[in-house]
Amino acid sequence: MPRVLVKISYHGGQFLGFQIQNQGRTVQGYFEKILKRMHKQPVRIHPSSRTDRGVHAKAQYFHFDTDLNIAPEKWQYAMNRSLPDDIYVHEVQFVDEDFHCRYDCVGKTYRYSVYQAAHRNPFLAQLKTFESAQLDIAAMNNAAQHFIGTHDFTSFCSQKTEVESKERTIYESHVIQTSEGLDFVITGSGFLYNMVRVIMAYLLEVGKGKRSAEDVPKLLVAKDRNLVPHTAPAEGLYLEKVYLSPQALQEDFGEDIKIHYKKSTQNS
Amino acid sequence: MPRVLVKISYHGGQFLGFQIQNQGRTVQGYFEKILKRMHKQPVRIHPSSRTDRGVHAKAQYFHFDTDLNIAPEKWQYAMNRSLPDDIYVHEVQFVDEDFHCRYDCVGKTYRYSVYQAAHRNPFLAQLKTFESAQLDIAAMNNAAQHFIGTHDFTSFCSQKTEVESKERTIYESHVIQTSEGLDFVITGSGFLYNMVRVIMAYLLEVGKGKRSAEDVPKLLVAKDRNLVPHTAPAEGLYLEKVYLSPQALQEDFGEDIKIHYKKSTQNS
Repeated sequence: MPRVLVKISYHGGQFLGFQIQNQGRTVQGYFEKILKRMHKQPVRIHPSSRTDRGVHAKAQYFHFDTDLNIAPEKWQYAMNRSLPDDIYVHEVQFVDEDFHCRYDCVGKTYRYSVYQAAHRNPFLAQLKTFESAQLDIAAMNNAAQHFIGTHDFTSFCSQKTEVESKERTIYESHVIQTSEGLDFVITGSGFLYNMVRVIMAYLLEVGKGKRSAEDVPKLLVAKDRNLVPHTAPAEGLYLEKVYLSPQALQEDFGEDIKIHYKKSTQNS
Repeated sequence: MPRVLVKISYHGGQFLGFQIQNQGRTVQGYFEKILKRMHKQPVRIHPSSRTDRGVHAKAQYFHFDTDLNIAPEKWQYAMNRSLPDDIYVHEVQFVDEDFHCRYDCVGKTYRYSVYQAAHRNPFLAQLKTFESAQLDIAAMNNAAQHFIGTHDFTSFCSQKTEVESKERTIYESHVIQTSEGLDFVITGSGFLYNMVRVIMAYLLEVGKGKRSAEDVPKLLVAKDRNLVPHTAPAEGLYLEKVYLSPQALQEDFGEDIKIHYKKSTQNS
C-alpha cells in the first residue's frame, strides 16, 4: 500500500496540540477527519513530532498509508481545500513503505521567539513571548553554547518524561538578536518533553543576570530537574525544521556529526 | 461621579466581537467582569465603536462611571493584570461628565490589510486577508479616491443597517502597497454596518479587473446594495484610530473639513 509523506505548517495558538484528543481542536484530528471522509474508513497519521498545545510548526511531517490512486498535487489540493486557515499543506510525496516519519527523523530544529517592549502587544500574542526586562543577549548566547554536544538532559526536561535514555546530541544552539527581541535556535538529535522550554527558561534567567552561563555544564552533570525548575510558555515556540535523513543533517552540520539512528533504538 | 476614559487595543481573532453576548468571549465581557469585581456591582462600559467578530482594534476607546477613588495609572495596572494576552489597556484618564465615547466620536480610521502570496500562511491567519490573485494596486487606489467626500453609502453597506441617514463624510481613502501586499486606509465621520468590508470587496474586484474604478460615483448615486453584493472577510480589518474631538480631526485633515456632530443628532 503506497505510503504518503505530507509536509505541513500550522499556527499552534488555537490547537490543543498535534495529537488527537477526545474533543477539541487538534492538527491530527483535522487530517484524520479529512482522510476518513476520503477513504470511508479511519486512517491513522504518524507525525515526526507531537507538538504540545500552543506550539507552532513551520515545517512538520506526517505519513499515512493509502489505497487511493491520487497524485501528490491532488492530495495537497484536497487537503488544503478542507483545512482551516491555521494549517497549510506545503508538499505531498510518495515514499518507501519502510520509511517512518518518527523513526527516520534524525534531527529537529526548534526556534523560540521573544519580543521585548515596554508593554504587551496583543498582535504578537501566541506568536512571540513577551519580556519587558532588559536581557543580556551575549550572556544568553554563551549559556546556549554549553548545550552543544552529547549530554544527559535530565536537568532540562519535564520530570514526566518517560524514555529509556535522556541522552541527546545538540548540533547547534545559539541566541540571536532580532528586530523585535531575540530568538533561541536549537538543533538536536531529538528533544525530551518540555526540553526546549526548560532550556529557554534558564536562558532568560541568564539574560536577567539571575543565573550564570558557566553553570550549564555542572547542571547537566547533576541530572536534577529541581535545579532548573522553570518552563518558558509554549507561545513563541516553533518546530522549524525536521531532518528525515542523515544526509540532510550532514548537509547542514558536516559529515562528521554523530547521527542517532532511531530506527534501531526506537526511542524519541 | 467621575467618568473614566480607557484606550485599548485588541486582537479580534478570538472574540465574538466587542459587544457582550450571553456567552462566549467578548471584549466588553472581559472589562465588565473586571469592573463588577472591583465595584461589587455591575458597571456598564460605552465604546466608541462596537467592532464585529474577528475585527481588530489598534486604538479603541470606552468610558464608564465610577465612585472608586483610583488613580489613572492604577486603573491601567489593575485592568492589564486581569486581562488576557489579546487585550491591552494603553491609557486611562478622567474626562468631563458630559463626555461620551460614542457621541463625541467625530471620526474613525480603519485599515484593511491584505497579504499576497502563492499560498496561505498560517501565521498570518486572522491578521491579514490572503489573496493569491495579481492585483492592480493603482486601479484600486483610483477607485478608493472616489469615496472621499460626503455621500450616501446605501450601496456600500449591509442591508441590515438601521440608521436614519446613510450619509457619511470620508476624509481620506487610499490603497498603499506594503511589504506583504496592500493596505486600504479609510477615515470618515462614521461607518455604516459592514461598510469598510463592502468597499474592500469592491476594491479587490477592481484590482482583479472585474470592476471599474470609474463606476464608484454612479454606484453611490444608485443607492442599491444589490449592485455591490460582496463583503470582504473580517480578518485583516483594524479599527486604527478614533477621533474624539473636532480638533483632533482638524489636526490630521485641516481646518476646513466638514465635522459631523453626533452629539446633537445622536446617530452613529
